[in-house]
Amino acid sequence: MKLLRVGPEGQERPALRDAEGRIRDLSAHVDDFAGAGVSLAAIDRLRAFDPASLPELTEPGRIGPCLASVPTFFCIGLNYAQHAAETGATPPAEPIVFSKAASALSGPDDAVRLPRGSEKSDWEVELGVVIGKRAQYVSVAEALDYVVGYCVVNDVSERAFQIERGGQWIKGKSAPTFGPVGPWLVTADEVPDPQALHLSLALNGTTMQDSTTADMIFSVAEIISHMSQMMALVPGDIIATGTPQGVGMGMSPQRFLRPGDVMELEVEGLGRQRQDVVAG
Amino acid sequence: MKLLRVGPEGQERPALRDAEGRIRDLSAHVDDFAGAGVSLAAIDRLRAFDPASLPELTEPGRIGPCLASVPTFFCIGLNYAQHAAETGATPPAEPIVFSKAASALSGPDDAVRLPRGSEKSDWEVELGVVIGKRAQYVSVAEALDYVVGYCVVNDVSERAFQIERGGQWIKGKSAPTFGPVGPWLVTADEVPDPQALHLSLALNGTTMQDSTTADMIFSVAEIISHMSQMMALVPGDIIATGTPQGVGMGMSPQRFLRPGDVMELEVEGLGRQRQDVVAG
Repeated sequence: MKLLRVGPEGQERPALRDAEGRIRDLSAHVDDFAGAGVSLAAIDRLRAFDPASLPELTEPGRIGPCLASVPTFFCIGLNYAQHAAETGATPPAEPIVFSKAASALSGPDDAVRLPRGSEKSDWEVELGVVIGKRAQYVSVAEALDYVVGYCVVNDVSERAFQIERGGQWIKGKSAPTFGPVGPWLVTADEVPDPQALHLSLALNGTTMQDSTTADMIFSVAEIISHMSQMMALVPGDIIATGTPQGVGMGMSPQRFLRPGDVMELEVEGLGRQRQDVVAG
Repeated sequence: MKLLRVGPEGQERPALRDAEGRIRDLSAHVDDFAGAGVSLAAIDRLRAFDPASLPELTEPGRIGPCLASVPTFFCIGLNYAQHAAETGATPPAEPIVFSKAASALSGPDDAVRLPRGSEKSDWEVELGVVIGKRAQYVSVAEALDYVVGYCVVNDVSERAFQIERGGQWIKGKSAPTFGPVGPWLVTADEVPDPQALHLSLALNGTTMQDSTTADMIFSVAEIISHMSQMMALVPGDIIATGTPQGVGMGMSPQRFLRPGDVMELEVEGLGRQRQDVVAG
């Protein structure tokens, strides 16, 4: 299933995109997509409905973030070897884990607002993983059983805030609109191999990132297993699994976001995002 | 007001501790204490009730975390000069910001479970600040207007996970039960000066931490103002504002938590916590 949330900011309703691309209203059947609302059990209950029986939303309007809120918005750093190289870092021996503020969450096509004083905001297309069952002390072999679905994430990053302001990275990852997720939460059954997805990002029509999740240093299953030894992942948590090479910080000269820029990004099978960059 | 949540884990109800120490049921008047439920406006509405008119809970049972959930559980690192010194770090030029996983949240007297393989778990008594109004681009002078209240936090930390596992600190801060908060959310009107609070922690009856929030490097107002330049703080966010000297990592020889240990901690005017340490 391709699940989404449509409507004005703060008033989104849960919906389903059917095989013909029509948007079907699910608000009579689920409160919203967040926390227990995206548990494996809750999502399985939605499979019982024939999409054709659900009311069609002929003018769905804006697409919101595919999750209404997140318990924790986790991110993995430097998880593609060529991206680690472009930033001057050595590849990590274990996954680097950090997080975004929950208030960074935004819709896939909402404008990205540069925070005041930002001179080094940057793009990062990523595969987002959504947890569907409490995960603690999980093996690599069973880790994907805890995933309810996948989505596109743009892990927008202010590099000066991230690196030059006394730490830690959360400082540069958390401005409002720095967490576009969606358009869809694509259930895991439609993603047979999360390590074989093409992902790309274009800035003003020019391709900047163009890679595959096969190049991850740590696989989705390894990340989940690793994190679950130190903490509990819970339904509705997102893990943005790192970005491939091609960010603005890695260019020579460096190229950072300016008002008027347009970012377009895509992960294979998970849909597309498009963001206008505006002053904060 | 002193607000709290009482009942078994996952079934807590919101309540108020009156001037005589009786627990009064608020569940008819507020859904729960989390997010918009602890906005300044929502808490102001509770002031209309005469505590004597609220049903008394004569056997309230367990005290849960004073917030049902947190949008983001922020923490500040190395914010007391003598604690920075004991860890071997130089005092930071700007606040160090990191976070805990939301799933770390626990009640003030719940057992602290050491994660499997933990050999370096440590205690950190802290002043917790709870945000009551969306804060972005806030000055130091107006920052405290965004605080709805304060609480005791034990920022329990696994030092090996935090420092020796490839980064970032969130890895060592996030195990379930590593975030005891409460017993009470004490509204800001009862805390005239958050920089004049005694705070202390005892391990097995021996005082390990004994300091005052006057020794913070960055004040509560400075922390809020600083963070709000880079992100939006939202109602229900917690900021644990750093710990004073006296943690186990700073001792010679170092002393870390073992099953059977008992932590007792207190922040002046905000109540006490007591945790048994158990194997995970």
